[in-house]
Amino acid sequence: MEYKVLTDQDIQFFQNLIGKENVLLLDLEKYSADATENLEFYPDVVLKPNSVEEISKIVAFCNENLLPITPRGAGTGLAGGALPIKGGVVLSVENLNQIIQIDEKNFQVIVEAGVINYVLQEALSEKNLFFPPDPSSWQSSLIGGNISTNAGGPKAVKYGVTSNYVLNLEVVLPNGEIIWTGANTLKNSTGLNLTQLFVGSEGTLGIITKAVLKVIPKPEKDISILVPFYDLEEACEAVSAIFHAGVNPSALEFLEQRAIDAATEFLFADANSSFEKNSEIQAHLLIALDEKIEIDLQKLVEVVSKFHIGEILFAENETEKARIWLIRRRVAEIVKINGYTIEEDTVVPRANLGKLVKKIHQMADENDFKVVCYGHAGDGNLHIRINHPEFKNSYNVPEIQLILAQLFQIVKNLGGTISGEHGIGLIQKPFLPIVFSKANLELQKTIKKTIDPRNIMNPGKIY
Amino acid sequence: MEYKVLTDQDIQFFQNLIGKENVLLLDLEKYSADATENLEFYPDVVLKPNSVEEISKIVAFCNENLLPITPRGAGTGLAGGALPIKGGVVLSVENLNQIIQIDEKNFQVIVEAGVINYVLQEALSEKNLFFPPDPSSWQSSLIGGNISTNAGGPKAVKYGVTSNYVLNLEVVLPNGEIIWTGANTLKNSTGLNLTQLFVGSEGTLGIITKAVLKVIPKPEKDISILVPFYDLEEACEAVSAIFHAGVNPSALEFLEQRAIDAATEFLFADANSSFEKNSEIQAHLLIALDEKIEIDLQKLVEVVSKFHIGEILFAENETEKARIWLIRRRVAEIVKINGYTIEEDTVVPRANLGKLVKKIHQMADENDFKVVCYGHAGDGNLHIRINHPEFKNSYNVPEIQLILAQLFQIVKNLGGTISGEHGIGLIQKPFLPIVFSKANLELQKTIKKTIDPRNIMNPGKIY
Repeated sequence: MEYKVLTDQDIQFFQNLIGKENVLLLDLEKYSADATENLEFYPDVVLKPNSVEEISKIVAFCNENLLPITPRGAGTGLAGGALPIKGGVVLSVENLNQIIQIDEKNFQVIVEAGVINYVLQEALSEKNLFFPPDPSSWQSSLIGGNISTNAGGPKAVKYGVTSNYVLNLEVVLPNGEIIWTGANTLKNSTGLNLTQLFVGSEGTLGIITKAVLKVIPKPEKDISILVPFYDLEEACEAVSAIFHAGVNPSALEFLEQRAIDAATEFLFADANSSFEKNSEIQAHLLIALDEKIEIDLQKLVEVVSKFHIGEILFAENETEKARIWLIRRRVAEIVKINGYTIEEDTVVPRANLGKLVKKIHQMADENDFKVVCYGHAGDGNLHIRINHPEFKNSYNVPEIQLILAQLFQIVKNLGGTISGEHGIGLIQKPFLPIVFSKANLELQKTIKKTIDPRNIMNPGKIY
Repeated sequence: MEYKVLTDQDIQFFQNLIGKENVLLLDLEKYSADATENLEFYPDVVLKPNSVEEISKIVAFCNENLLPITPRGAGTGLAGGALPIKGGVVLSVENLNQIIQIDEKNFQVIVEAGVINYVLQEALSEKNLFFPPDPSSWQSSLIGGNISTNAGGPKAVKYGVTSNYVLNLEVVLPNGEIIWTGANTLKNSTGLNLTQLFVGSEGTLGIITKAVLKVIPKPEKDISILVPFYDLEEACEAVSAIFHAGVNPSALEFLEQRAIDAATEFLFADANSSFEKNSEIQAHLLIALDEKIEIDLQKLVEVVSKFHIGEILFAENETEKARIWLIRRRVAEIVKINGYTIEEDTVVPRANLGKLVKKIHQMADENDFKVVCYGHAGDGNLHIRINHPEFKNSYNVPEIQLILAQLFQIVKNLGGTISGEHGIGLIQKPFLPIVFSKANLELQKTIKKTIDPRNIMNPGKIY
């Protein structure tokens, strides 16, 4: 379908509707990129509406006039989902930033899509409540974006990902109609699960404007533990063993040593990050416990001691925990600066993690690129960062796409899939036929087409 | 659309495909009813295929020949989802009863749709594993049916409902194509969430043939506690208070006293069920704990002691626990025998439970019917059983439908919805416009129509 080119009359319409100050035509750099590789696509206009009613009218107008809309949160995505590859309208939900209600009695909150994850966390913390999904981008990423990508984060291993906390959504459909998808209840067997159809749909089916989220009581105490491993694969094997011992970690992260070293050097002048520095250490597991801590700690030490490990570090004070987690939180951006520009978000059944790490390192050796891995090992979710001497992007680079196709075939053979928490967006789209059958993909496309027949919502993504 | 009437040639086709012994034409009583009220609809033929390939061929044939298919598990549903109201084919998955793999390393199982919930539980228990969803029908209901209705059960309050354990599904689409919906991973942000679209879709979008389910380590120990309340609403208020004290119950059930009395009388010759017998007691909370038991027990006693309660009973030994839970498990069927034939599956935000219980009792008084309530109070999921002097069914009875419409409007106003774990099926269908907007319902219908354009899959249900 041929999209219309934005006209002065269109701009006039938008200005009348949401006010001139919310219609941006110049200095759109900020809206031309996200956290994905080194990609840049400029929209024709950025709209920052202030209400669901305004969004409804914008969407209805764009639908009628065949103007493509790219919905945008904070632009922290890692798959290019927020990039306006067809130009047209970027619709930012940043002005919808109200926490509407914290219902302490029912452990629920109602938020607008533009609330920053961190802001919600802080507001909840004051009331001893807790919203577990906290991707590394939590200090800037918006709840609407978290929902659209089904974001995870370190605590997903115990508490689940974003989808597990979304009870009900207000959504503007591609025809401009506003719906609530479900009910504000913990259980729901009433009709099709539209709520979960929109979670993770990356703005391709409509625009999420409000969410009713489940929250839980804030854990009273937590402790972080660092276990250095002399062998990469053993670190992965230990992950499975920890669960089999009955330990219930609130985080179980894997970090390759070269990622830790890069982050330590970047962040700490004294190079002291609490992680063990030893050229023979290949990886660390970073484990958190927040319930039955004594019992689980004992089991944990027993299990990991069977492997070839360095000295275990127990971090109980806030300063030390903060230092350790800063490394984990910022590792992606730091290794990216160091040339590891291409990030993958593979996920496999947990016990197959060791095989995956081994294979990707073999591939790197054979194909003369560098690789560094880290991620949410407890979920089997491994982030693989690639530093290729010649290519810094995967998008539209056949050499890299060949490597990735090979990688995803391995992941598929291990029972896994392409993305655990980042989404498909733009850059992973070519690889879907590796993990989905033709009939499955056809069904996804048919659903998209049915809901958005004129393909105005985030065109060129996923499908 | 006009369905075709089943012919001898159709029967011949089915017999050739799956064997005469799996094509039933006589004595179809068993397949004409489920556990819903007193309803009966006869199919023209019952097919019991032995493989997904056979199912694929049956479905493709029915699609081409416009024969309606009603998929069936064990027929324990409470919303009429398995009733063949258009005649035609009942497709029973009972022969697909293999546990294909228990992957202890990854805490996953692969099962066919016809595996009995209880059989899976037993097989897992031997390996110290645990699949939390266990509806009251667990001794006979099939995993395929549990998934199709998104079944819950008492443990959902801590561990979640069926949807939280379904990682991947093998589904036969209405055109006969076979797909896997997702991947065998704990996290997944790869494309639309087809898996959760099929969970709870009650056989209207396709036939679930296999499932990859997440399982968890079996809790080492558990204890059940009975708290008798002198006041119905106070019992409901205590539910919220328990969570606010930080207690994490593995079950939190509410039972009105008249339900307990009926079940006790029916099940125990000596009328000793461990529940307090006292004409002034109006309800019991039945609470289970399976983690940090000592700490939670102390908090629990402290909280409930603030209410007007009888003597708390602590059940640690297996015999006493079994006796208590037998009452809870069988209460529905027993009150049904006693004339409470109409069962509702309302769900509201937890703190609104008291208001709901009060309102339904007011309605009963004003409209001269009897009501008894019980259910998964921790989830806000209240089963309401109605004994009407004149009407034993809700289906097609305007007087009852008027009462239910009023009830569901109250539920809606309390932030709740029609079904927490039973589904919509046949009997709840008329009430969907109370909880869904026109645009929402239209979207659901459009998705159904897109996936099943000839409306052969469980026609007349949900939409």
